[in-house]
Order: sequence, then C-alpha cells, then structure tokens
Amino acid sequence: MANSLYDFGMIGLGVMGRNLLLNMADHGFSVIGFDKDATKTGALESAATPGTTVKGVADLAAMVQQLERPRKLMMLVPAGQPVDDVIASLLPLLEPGDVVIDGGNSHYTDTLRRVKYLREKNIHFMGIGVSGGEKGARTGPSIMPGGDLEAYAKVKPMLEAIAAKVNGTPCVAYLGKEGAGHYVKMVHNGIEYAIMQLISEAYTLLKKGAGLDNDQLHKVFDSWNKGSLQSFLVEITADIFLQKDDKTNARLVDVISDKAGSKGTGKWTSQDAMELPVAVPVIDTAVAMRTISGYKDQRLAAEQLYPAPDATIHLNTEQWIQQVHDALYFATILSYAQGLAMLNEGSRELQMEIPLPEVVKVWRGGCIIRSTLLEVFTQAYQQNTELANILLDKGVASLVTSVIANTRSVVAHAANAGIPAAGFMSALSYFDAFRTGRMATNLIQAQRDYFGAHTYQRTDMAGTFHTEWEHHN
Amino acid sequence: MANSLYDFGMIGLGVMGRNLLLNMADHGFSVIGFDKDATKTGALESAATPGTTVKGVADLAAMVQQLERPRKLMMLVPAGQPVDDVIASLLPLLEPGDVVIDGGNSHYTDTLRRVKYLREKNIHFMGIGVSGGEKGARTGPSIMPGGDLEAYAKVKPMLEAIAAKVNGTPCVAYLGKEGAGHYVKMVHNGIEYAIMQLISEAYTLLKKGAGLDNDQLHKVFDSWNKGSLQSFLVEITADIFLQKDDKTNARLVDVISDKAGSKGTGKWTSQDAMELPVAVPVIDTAVAMRTISGYKDQRLAAEQLYPAPDATIHLNTEQWIQQVHDALYFATILSYAQGLAMLNEGSRELQMEIPLPEVVKVWRGGCIIRSTLLEVFTQAYQQNTELANILLDKGVASLVTSVIANTRSVVAHAANAGIPAAGFMSALSYFDAFRTGRMATNLIQAQRDYFGAHTYQRTDMAGTFHTEWEHHN
Repeated sequence: MANSLYDFGMIGLGVMGRNLLLNMADHGFSVIGFDKDATKTGALESAATPGTTVKGVADLAAMVQQLERPRKLMMLVPAGQPVDDVIASLLPLLEPGDVVIDGGNSHYTDTLRRVKYLREKNIHFMGIGVSGGEKGARTGPSIMPGGDLEAYAKVKPMLEAIAAKVNGTPCVAYLGKEGAGHYVKMVHNGIEYAIMQLISEAYTLLKKGAGLDNDQLHKVFDSWNKGSLQSFLVEITADIFLQKDDKTNARLVDVISDKAGSKGTGKWTSQDAMELPVAVPVIDTAVAMRTISGYKDQRLAAEQLYPAPDATIHLNTEQWIQQVHDALYFATILSYAQGLAMLNEGSRELQMEIPLPEVVKVWRGGCIIRSTLLEVFTQAYQQNTELANILLDKGVASLVTSVIANTRSVVAHAANAGIPAAGFMSALSYFDAFRTGRMATNLIQAQRDYFGAHTYQRTDMAGTFHTEWEHHN
Repeated sequence: MANSLYDFGMIGLGVMGRNLLLNMADHGFSVIGFDKDATKTGALESAATPGTTVKGVADLAAMVQQLERPRKLMMLVPAGQPVDDVIASLLPLLEPGDVVIDGGNSHYTDTLRRVKYLREKNIHFMGIGVSGGEKGARTGPSIMPGGDLEAYAKVKPMLEAIAAKVNGTPCVAYLGKEGAGHYVKMVHNGIEYAIMQLISEAYTLLKKGAGLDNDQLHKVFDSWNKGSLQSFLVEITADIFLQKDDKTNARLVDVISDKAGSKGTGKWTSQDAMELPVAVPVIDTAVAMRTISGYKDQRLAAEQLYPAPDATIHLNTEQWIQQVHDALYFATILSYAQGLAMLNEGSRELQMEIPLPEVVKVWRGGCIIRSTLLEVFTQAYQQNTELANILLDKGVASLVTSVIANTRSVVAHAANAGIPAAGFMSALSYFDAFRTGRMATNLIQAQRDYFGAHTYQRTDMAGTFHTEWEHHN
C-alpha cells in the first residue's frame, strides 16, 4: 500500500496546473491531480508521458488520502475567493505538518493572511509565484517560493527538478518569509507590463517613424534577440510579426484589436508601490496605457479633432533602428531598476527578508521577463548584496551611459513626431530625476507651506520651519 | 433660552476649523466651537471679529446642548480613526435629523461607510471637501459637499454664505450622493499634485535651461498670472521667488530642502484611478516625483556616477519662456482632463451622480486649483453635460492645438538637455495616445496570447480568439 501513495498533489487542472504536474511526473515524481471537471482529469492522464505515474481524480478527499505524508500539494485556481474555498475544503482532510502551496497569482496580503491562519492549525502554507506561461509550466518555469524554510525544505526537491535551468542552476530559490513569493511574482509581473509596453513603443516608433513592415520588424527584433536585448519577450515579438492570420491574408498582428486586457497584477504593483512608497513610474505608465487602450470610442473621436503631426523620423533608417534599440535597452534596464528597488523597499518595510541576489538569479530562466540583462544584475548584486537601486552599480551605470544619448534622441523625435512613447519618456524622466542631486521639488515644498502651512525643511540647518509668505500683487 | 442657541458647531479648532467657524460668524451666524485644548478655544474667541457671536468650549456635550435643532455641526479633525472617535462621542448626544459634517480629507470609502452607519440612526452624515488653505477658510473657500439632499438643504445657507464667490456665485453646490464630496476633493487634490509638479518643471526648465534667476522667475510667473495661465498656484509661485530668507541673505526658495512631503490624497487619487480603472498618468507622475524627491542619498550618489548633459537650451530666452509657458498651459489642461475623466468614470461606477458642470463651477474660486481655465471648462460642460473627456470639447481642442507645437519642442529640448520633465512628458504621451485611433497595444495582446493563451479580439469580426503561435528559429 505504501508504494501506491503519490509524491505530490495538484488541485485545479487548468493548463498551468496540468502542465506543472506533468513536469513533475517527467522528473520521476508520482503525481495525482484533482479537478471537479472529469474531462480535465482525463486530459491530464492522456497527456502524461508514457512510463510516468500520473493519476487524475474528481474527488478531493480521494486525492488527499492517496498522498505520501507529510502531504505536499499545490492549488492552481483563480485568485481570490476560490483559494479560500479550496482551503476550507482541504482543512478537514489535512494533518499537522502537511504543506499546502498556492501557485496562483494571489495578492500577497491574502497570502499573508492565509499563512497566519493555517499556521495556527499547524499546516504549512506557501505562496509560490510561477512564471513561464503554459509552455514554461511543462518544460521549466521560473519558481518564486515564499513561506517558512521548514516547508520549503520539503518541496525543494520537486521544485528544483521542474524549474528552468540556467547553466545547470535551477531557477528557484527560497525568496523570503510569509507572502514574499507572491510579492516577488507581483513585482515580476509589474516589470513584465513595463517591458511589454516598451516593446510596443519600439514597434510603433519603427513602424510609424520609419515605415517598417512586418517582415522588416521581424528581422529587427530577431537581430535584437541575438544581442544585448536577448530576452523571451523580444524573441516572441520577432515571431509575432511573421504569424499569418488563418482567416484573411493579413499578418495576424494587424487584425488584432488594440484594446489590451490585463489580469490586475500590474495594477497591484503600482498601487502597492505608492503605498510603500516607492516610485515605479514605468510600470504606472504601462498600466495607464492599457487603460487608455480601452478608450476606443474616445480615441477615434479625438483622432478627428486633433491633426496628427508628420510621424516620419528624418534619420537614416539603420540609424533610427539603432537609436530605438538603445532606447529600449535603456528603458528595459530602468524597468528592472524600479521593480527591484520596490522589492528592496517592500522587503524591508514588510519584513519579508527577500534576497535580491537570489531573485535576479531565479528570473534568469523560465519566466516571462527572462533576459540576458539578468546576468548583469546578478553580477551587480554579487558586488553588493545591499544595493538599493541597480542604477547605483558601476557596471549597470556604464551600460546606461552607453545608450543614454540615443535614448534622448528617441524621446525627442517621438515628441516631435507625435508618436506615443509614454514608457520611454517615463523611464528617461525617472532617470534624469534620479541622477539629480537637487531636484526642483523645493518649489513644491514652498507652495505647500505657502497655502497650507505644511512647513518645510532647510538645506543648511536641521528642524522644521514655516514662513508667513508675502504676497506681491 | 431659545435665543441663546447657536446656529452651527465646530469640532476641532485647528487653523482650518477655527477659520471656517470665524468665516461663518463674519456672515452673521452664531457659532460655537469645541476643542479639548483650552488654548484653542481661547484663540477662537480672541480672533473673532468684534460684534460677531463666537464661543469656544472644552466640553463636547456642552457644545451640542447649545446648538439649535436640528443641529448642524462640522468636524475638522485628522482623517482616519479620529473621525470615528468623534462620531462615537457624538452619537449619545445627538437626535434624529441632526446633521454631522466631516470637513476633513477623509477617504471617500470611509465616508461612505459612515454615511450608511449614521443613516441607520437617522443622523445625516455629510462628507464635505474644503479647499483654500488657511486663508481661504477664513475669507472664502471652495466647498464640495456630498451626502443626501435633505441634509444639504439644511446647511446650504451657511455654506453659500462662507464660500468664495465668482461673479457673485458662491463656490459651493451639491456635488452628489454619499461619499461624493470627499471623492471630488480627492480628485481636486490629485489635480493639485499634478499642477504643482508641472510648475516645478517649468521652474527648473527656465532656471537650468535659460539661467533665469529668482527675480527673472518672479517676473515670468507674474506675467503668466496675468494671462491664460492665471491661477492661484502660478500667483503664489511668483510670490515665492521674491521671498527673502530671514536667516541668511538668500532667497528662501533656494534654502528649502527638495524633499517634498505629502498627506496622501494624491496617492489615493492614483490608486483609486487604477482601481476603476481610469488613466491619470500626470497625477501618477506627480506622486512618483515626490517619492523620488525623498531618495536624497541615492540621488547624490547617482549624480557622481552619471555625467550630466549640457542643460543649456540653445534658443532665444524669450522664445524659450514662451515655449515653456505653452507647455505648462498644455499640461495643466491635460491634468484637469485626466482628473475630470476620473470623476466622470468614478461617478458612474460608484453611482454618486456627480454633476461635472457644477464641479468645475465650484472650483472656479476659493480652491487651490482655481484658475481661469475653469471658465473654459464651465463653457465646455454647458455645451455638453455628458462630456466623457474635456479634450473632446471643440473649444478645449482649439486651445490645446494652439500650444501643442511648443509643447513638443519643450519635451524634446528637456530630453536632450537632461532636465527632468516627467509631468510634461507624461501629459504629452497621454495626449498622443488619446488622439490615436489605433494604438500599438495590439502587439501587447498578441504577446499575452502567445505566452499565456489570454486570447484576443479582432478588428474585423466579433468574438474571442486564440492562436497557436509559431516559433521561428
């Protein structure tokens, strides 16, 4: 009987749950999955690699009973109430010492609450971020676990087996206490929003500014993916321009609606960043642009009302492509910088002890924001594990400095040509503020004291001051 | 005895509470104020205009007993728990039909909760936004009341008497149900954050870009305040440059620290806008820049690491001043546009029935964001009370179109000169996205479907689609 117990259980056999479970089976673990929907349990078993041990059941209690103790199981269900419902159903079936993992995109505050609730019942609850999409889940995702170390030790072998590998190192590590796993995943997704926005700007700058067609755009992004911009998102962008529509003769990208959807994790990143506070304006901008993409009727009306400037960029095309490349490189670094600065501050403020050097290593493979830049940041954190902002690393600084002139040119040209480049502009203005020892915000403090007696500090002496400002007509 | 009852009571005699109460007394109402701090009750009475009826007491029950029924009283205490504490103390002292006003900067969700709680006890609770700073409170603030109409009718005479007047029209009107007053005030403050950020950018563009000293800056802002930029914030900015420091021989603005503080209402605006969602990127940017202003040590370190480009703007100074003027005008319009679009969407989503034509009329006088532009918007809403975005009004469009070329030039110059202009850039990129019928966000939808099977919509047929994207090489 002991031999028939399974190593790992999965609750929810949607595409992510199924693929993660099959990935475990492919690595020699015996696995069992539960879903109320019998077609999904059947799909799980029929998709299993021959010779692996994979079982699907439509009865939760039956699954829990067949798990090796202490039980190790993960749920992959929609964030919010469904997670609490699953926990309520599971609780009567579990025993002290069991490990329950939430592998979905839960908000970290919910995870924190659940960790505390289940700790009282001696159940280990872990929030784990998983990135890589459906293919990554099957072949090697990036895994961001948070929770208690004792629980992590129990699931570490499975997680390391299924994770993406970079030079043999699995893209998983213990990333901090309590809600840290979902916190890191949230910020990962915020950075993902930012980079996707930036790539869409590079696309429109090349298309509108230099008239590149889809074949040319493919070639540009494909070549970028072989250099310093090498990354999953640039790679799939190159693919996208070649994809043919099966309904018309067009390229698919040209018939896709420009209303961009979202699942909310980018929004969470921006909202939580403001709460800390920490500044992540490129992520804020990406969230805003997705929102504006939904104003379709208003935008069509505005297009009639406002004449468009000539969008042509009057530069040699190769030169313009290089400038846009450099601006994308710059703004991508800035997106990581803002996200990592948020992790640094959030970890401190919420006492999560998130190890940033491990985070950037975990992100090197498997996840949506994997890129060759993560190697650069890994080196930066090896130099200084306490780095408050990667822009303060000398290696990063030399990369940024090498592309800043072209970035400025792209922003200036975009402004004059009327091509929306909100992300590039936001990255540049953050950078120019960040590298300015004395900002112009002294004027804001003066205004606040003038109209609201909010007081101010001085540059030359300690204390808090208020002035009765004189009005001069 | 009846003659000795007071018309209105105030709880909390800080500068705002005291000045509002004295303002009422100046308009013929008999008023009574409560504060635990006897020095504040004394200060209230000694600041009263001779011949007015003003009393200060340090006993809450004594104040409530001396109010005409139904009682009308306002609290001006710090937002959060203190408001709930006052309500708890008041409840045993009140009778059905009494009106309790929260005149502080409470979050509208708290107000909504309190309205419902007190409605069960037959007490009218109103959230009222008050803007104008300490001087405005005494001489005529802008007042933004929300709640039930029955309660508003009871306090309308007092509010109209004390409000600022524009051409004889009081800057107060019923602005919607339940939490609407505090919602409108929150968005007012968000716009205030945005405009203050923009003015600080104009300041640095003129100072760093053209070398203007404080006297010259005073003259520029003073002349701007006599034209289309006429506004309270431009007016006080002109004053600020002349203010002498009483501790050194410097101008005060030059010795004020650049770490900008905040009370959180700008942050609320951005966070709540994302929740709706509605895009207010200039406000987001203003919030982010105040946060970055706090990174003093990091900024000083970055200044050492990154060489600054030549900040000189190579244009005739008068021409540059005009361009910056136009950019400030443009970005200020965009700030109002974003805030008003948020009110439009928030009112609909939260069923507050906020009358936007009334909001812009109320903002014309007394408040921090009063400006000659509000007259323009008042006319726009007279043309179309259902305007989703003021950028879609023809009159506003012609103003925007008249300054867009100079705005583009300012953003381009700022980018090349390395002068931080986050607000101007954010305003321009919002505008360029907003006036674009087809954005580049189709690429984002393609990416989301590629890696996450998130599906997409098409431009040429209804439905939701998913593609198995082909990977090339």
